Amino acid sequence: MSTRAKIIEALSEAGEDHVSGHDLAENLGISRNAVWKHIETLRVRGYVIESTHARGYRLSSAPDALTREAIEPHLETEWLGRSLVCHDVTGSTNDDAGVLARDGAPEGTVVLADAQTAGRGRLGRDWVSRPRLNLYASLLLRPKIAPADAPQLSLVAGVAVAHALERVGLEPGIKWPNDVLIDGRKVCGVLTEIEAEADMVGSVVVGIGVNLNSERDDFPEELQDRAVSVLMATGAKVNRAFFVATLLECFERAYERWRDGGFGPLKDDWERRATLLGKPVEVAAASATTTGICVGIDSDGALLLKGDDNEVRRVIAGDVTLVGGYEG
Amino acid sequence: MSTRAKIIEALSEAGEDHVSGHDLAENLGISRNAVWKHIETLRVRGYVIESTHARGYRLSSAPDALTREAIEPHLETEWLGRSLVCHDVTGSTNDDAGVLARDGAPEGTVVLADAQTAGRGRLGRDWVSRPRLNLYASLLLRPKIAPADAPQLSLVAGVAVAHALERVGLEPGIKWPNDVLIDGRKVCGVLTEIEAEADMVGSVVVGIGVNLNSERDDFPEELQDRAVSVLMATGAKVNRAFFVATLLECFERAYERWRDGGFGPLKDDWERRATLLGKPVEVAAASATTTGICVGIDSDGALLLKGDDNEVRRVIAGDVTLVGGYEG
Repeated sequence: MSTRAKIIEALSEAGEDHVSGHDLAENLGISRNAVWKHIETLRVRGYVIESTHARGYRLSSAPDALTREAIEPHLETEWLGRSLVCHDVTGSTNDDAGVLARDGAPEGTVVLADAQTAGRGRLGRDWVSRPRLNLYASLLLRPKIAPADAPQLSLVAGVAVAHALERVGLEPGIKWPNDVLIDGRKVCGVLTEIEAEADMVGSVVVGIGVNLNSERDDFPEELQDRAVSVLMATGAKVNRAFFVATLLECFERAYERWRDGGFGPLKDDWERRATLLGKPVEVAAASATTTGICVGIDSDGALLLKGDDNEVRRVIAGDVTLVGGYEG
Repeated sequence: MSTRAKIIEALSEAGEDHVSGHDLAENLGISRNAVWKHIETLRVRGYVIESTHARGYRLSSAPDALTREAIEPHLETEWLGRSLVCHDVTGSTNDDAGVLARDGAPEGTVVLADAQTAGRGRLGRDWVSRPRLNLYASLLLRPKIAPADAPQLSLVAGVAVAHALERVGLEPGIKWPNDVLIDGRKVCGVLTEIEAEADMVGSVVVGIGVNLNSERDDFPEELQDRAVSVLMATGAKVNRAFFVATLLECFERAYERWRDGGFGPLKDDWERRATLLGKPVEVAAASATTTGICVGIDSDGALLLKGDDNEVRRVIAGDVTLVGGYEG
């Protein structure tokens, strides 16, 4: 953790109390003058820090910024996000993470942005990325798997995002393969991209976009009835730095379970939140469209559809729509 | 085709005869002075072109260069290699093609180099890339497939290379998945790399290295008993530009058969050249090692091994060695 992050952590832990410059300097092994300089830098970055000569410093408010100093005090992961790249604005965090991957960046590197100018969704679709409201994160992973197993990581991401949303009091559902919904509206999308040799994955970038503090009017009109944010669902803003840290922790846990035991251990977690279970759906893939009642997912993450002929078919990829309507 | 390539084609077709500057100018729709300038440029690039005032130009020898001008007169493809990038020296043609792919280059773009300074083989191994002797080509493809189907393209490449070698009079064998051998020694390696969303391939780069005009001493000592070149096998040098054009034509045909009909139509072609058929082999993959008698490949390209228990097992990835020795 950086020195500034440690200062914020110390002030946050003190809550309404003051922390003396002397204590900060001693605990961090730096001079009181250095402490003062860090405090000044934090103030420039939007932290409101009161100070009195007699009692020391007190944090009265923190900016809602996606910076290392804001995130690190909340971060409980072992390896995910310990290398953290934070942009104010970038084209696409997935593109940035892809470049880092090709340059040899280690597993666990995370790229964040306050805004994206060329955010992408699945199948080359645009992803609307308004500044300073939501979360755009790309996680660089290097699992030793065949390309055929990569879609499982999208499911792992769906489970991790659901866990993180539950920590802030929501009851999300997951729509196969990896949209996360609240009351049938999309709160999160995942874009998993890989680079691989024909039979061995070199790197995976899992891009996660979560609508956090957008209001209904912040979405383009055509999405207003289909999208939702944490703010819209709970009525309260969520601190984005805290949510990022929570998400990374949930992801690290889900990923390690998957890495060590395959998708099996996560299957229950996924199915419990599955919005499509028992419903008639249609899956459109490049080659064919499959319809049937969703009866679950297979141990490798494939969607299982029971057709009119009572045969259960496996679907590995495609766009899902509920037959006859509203996604609940 | 470029104007210079057309001039070379016209001179090549004339053989021992001369072609007048007047005819060249008229057929190409340019001035006689422009023809003369192109001839001068070709001479600088190593073409030996005789000229007499009375009879015109005659091609007496062409350099063994991998340039557009040298390749295009031989090229019979419809779309493969019609966008052609030729380097004297580059790090890795696969890396170059990967960058072009991400920048949106079209299917069929081909990157060639006379030498690579950082040539790569499968699983991150080095690929020795001596200058001006062999062939290093990377083919950019954009098939609409899932990542799981990408290994099939390595098999397609193996078949295409075998076809091209047969055109110059050799009888190559294919070692699963995609080494091409002559008398048990490796003449070609293939490195297939993909970038993809979790369930849809964006681009594939098929890197093909073929030993053409290397002598035994040109190989590192540890490879001298295991590697072979066309020159070593036939006793004659092969014109590299001609061979590239031949390979691209064979690849385009094999690729179109695969694209339109899957691996099935190529299966016979592959098995007929399979060096492992009927032999005891061991396949080492990341997760496990499988042993058995090779009994063929599946319709999706998986290797089929019959174990001691008479069960036939599918192997999708791994490094193959013949149990008990020499690869014939």
